[in-house]
Amino acid sequence: MIFKIVFLGTSGTVPSLDRNTSSIFVQVGKERMLFDCGEGTQRQIMIAKLGFRNINNIFITHLHTDHFAGIFGLIETMSLNDRKNDLNIYSPNSEIIKTIFDLFGYDGLSYRINVKEVKDGVEIKFENFKVLAFKTEHLVPSVGYAIIENERRGKFNREMAEKVFGIPPGPLYSKIARGESIIWNGKVITPEMILGEPKKGRKVVYTGDTRPTKRTVEVSKDADILIHDASFTEDLRDWAVESGHSTAKEAAIVAKEANVKKLILTHISARYSKDSSFLIEEAKKIFENVEVAKDFMDIEVPLN
Amino acid sequence: MIFKIVFLGTSGTVPSLDRNTSSIFVQVGKERMLFDCGEGTQRQIMIAKLGFRNINNIFITHLHTDHFAGIFGLIETMSLNDRKNDLNIYSPNSEIIKTIFDLFGYDGLSYRINVKEVKDGVEIKFENFKVLAFKTEHLVPSVGYAIIENERRGKFNREMAEKVFGIPPGPLYSKIARGESIIWNGKVITPEMILGEPKKGRKVVYTGDTRPTKRTVEVSKDADILIHDASFTEDLRDWAVESGHSTAKEAAIVAKEANVKKLILTHISARYSKDSSFLIEEAKKIFENVEVAKDFMDIEVPLN
Repeated sequence: MIFKIVFLGTSGTVPSLDRNTSSIFVQVGKERMLFDCGEGTQRQIMIAKLGFRNINNIFITHLHTDHFAGIFGLIETMSLNDRKNDLNIYSPNSEIIKTIFDLFGYDGLSYRINVKEVKDGVEIKFENFKVLAFKTEHLVPSVGYAIIENERRGKFNREMAEKVFGIPPGPLYSKIARGESIIWNGKVITPEMILGEPKKGRKVVYTGDTRPTKRTVEVSKDADILIHDASFTEDLRDWAVESGHSTAKEAAIVAKEANVKKLILTHISARYSKDSSFLIEEAKKIFENVEVAKDFMDIEVPLN
Repeated sequence: MIFKIVFLGTSGTVPSLDRNTSSIFVQVGKERMLFDCGEGTQRQIMIAKLGFRNINNIFITHLHTDHFAGIFGLIETMSLNDRKNDLNIYSPNSEIIKTIFDLFGYDGLSYRINVKEVKDGVEIKFENFKVLAFKTEHLVPSVGYAIIENERRGKFNREMAEKVFGIPPGPLYSKIARGESIIWNGKVITPEMILGEPKKGRKVVYTGDTRPTKRTVEVSKDADILIHDASFTEDLRDWAVESGHSTAKEAAIVAKEANVKKLILTHISARYSKDSSFLIEEAKKIFENVEVAKDFMDIEVPLN
């Protein structure tokens, strides 16, 4: 199953020539989602050639404009494209969004918007995965999101099916492989009898803007990818504390404690926009497998 | 005196790869202003290398997000840049803007924002020019803006000063040229006695989104440049009527009736984003000196 991440905006609060404000496109199977939607995101979607169709869920980490001011234009573009599907917008403090939508008079859209408030522990379930909201620590109510793939079924054991149970190759094999039970020779054969060990689903965690927290470590335990705020280097730690952000070192400590496979730093302050080597060097001292996000960088999350 | 226009965004409601949403930078003398501020304007300012300093006045034509959603990010960037000057934001329906600012909690900014409501006939006066708001005809309350330079003093008539009045060349000449009266040989010499005919100030009119109107013709009378909505060609006139926009032909008729020197078409629908020749051809049948705006196109308004 496809599990793809495209960074649409990786700047700090202020965009730069190289980096737009925060937004990440994630596709899991057929679900196409946005995590944050800063100013200019719709144009980033155009540049990345992702298209607006079937983006049905937008997850906002917090209501600072560099993380959500892009939804207004996107909503209108979707309506001018005659969208019909509902659009779900998840956010802490959803009343603010609802009030703005009322002010903007969004009743005339071609589709319905459902604004849903999330808080720590809320799970939004999809066919093959779920999105878990978890509390983060920023200047305003904020959450991060963990995208957690369901366990994947184990490998089809052909020898077991053919030799042990004597099931002939054909449509029954497909049924079992899809996870359905069959009846063979008057006996119920469950998938567990034929398929190998189920495989752990993949997990990607996006913090949004935050100080490092225990909750992030907990949620990110053994994640495939942790995308963490790393607005500053350690010499600006006071500023990071004051503004509710993290340093590259702090993000690396979270990654190490959570035992993630890969750390991606984002929300890059304009001072490192062109040269992010300071962030990488600082993080690498703690956690080796680290990268700084760039606009339009895309990643296929590898199967375990 | 400098009188410069830089187009920052020339798209219709939906931006494209080539065109961002509406915004025009205008500098008259030392005053640097924005007319409309669509999503992504702050990044367009960066690309155009205009800088954020001393942009003290933003004139919004109407509260559709493709014309004003860029103010939020711009306001925050200006505060992070530790701006101190007041920022004036002019708009019809200013209560909406004030309500959003309250929701966003803009009390912590480094400078003060004054939101001022404008309607037809309101004049905002600057040292060397004024901005006149005039009613337009769109789906929501809307105005256009005319930037009207003051009369410029006539040419210094050296012969008159030297031969007729016997004033010796030197600092007195400068005083008169600056428009001040002097006393010479016990007689008051006013600038009018020495300077030639005052010259008509330059005039640039920007309509924002609108149907063609008589009021636009009236305000644009003899303007140097008329920047007019031309979202569509005539084959989509029904749509233009329904959505409160103009066709290229309609814009050209306004330009002709107003006897302007030059017409610039903007708010270009995505369908003509790359190839705007249809708009030009249609307009040229009515009005010869016409151009389609492009992002980052800049124009120095010539002296009369």
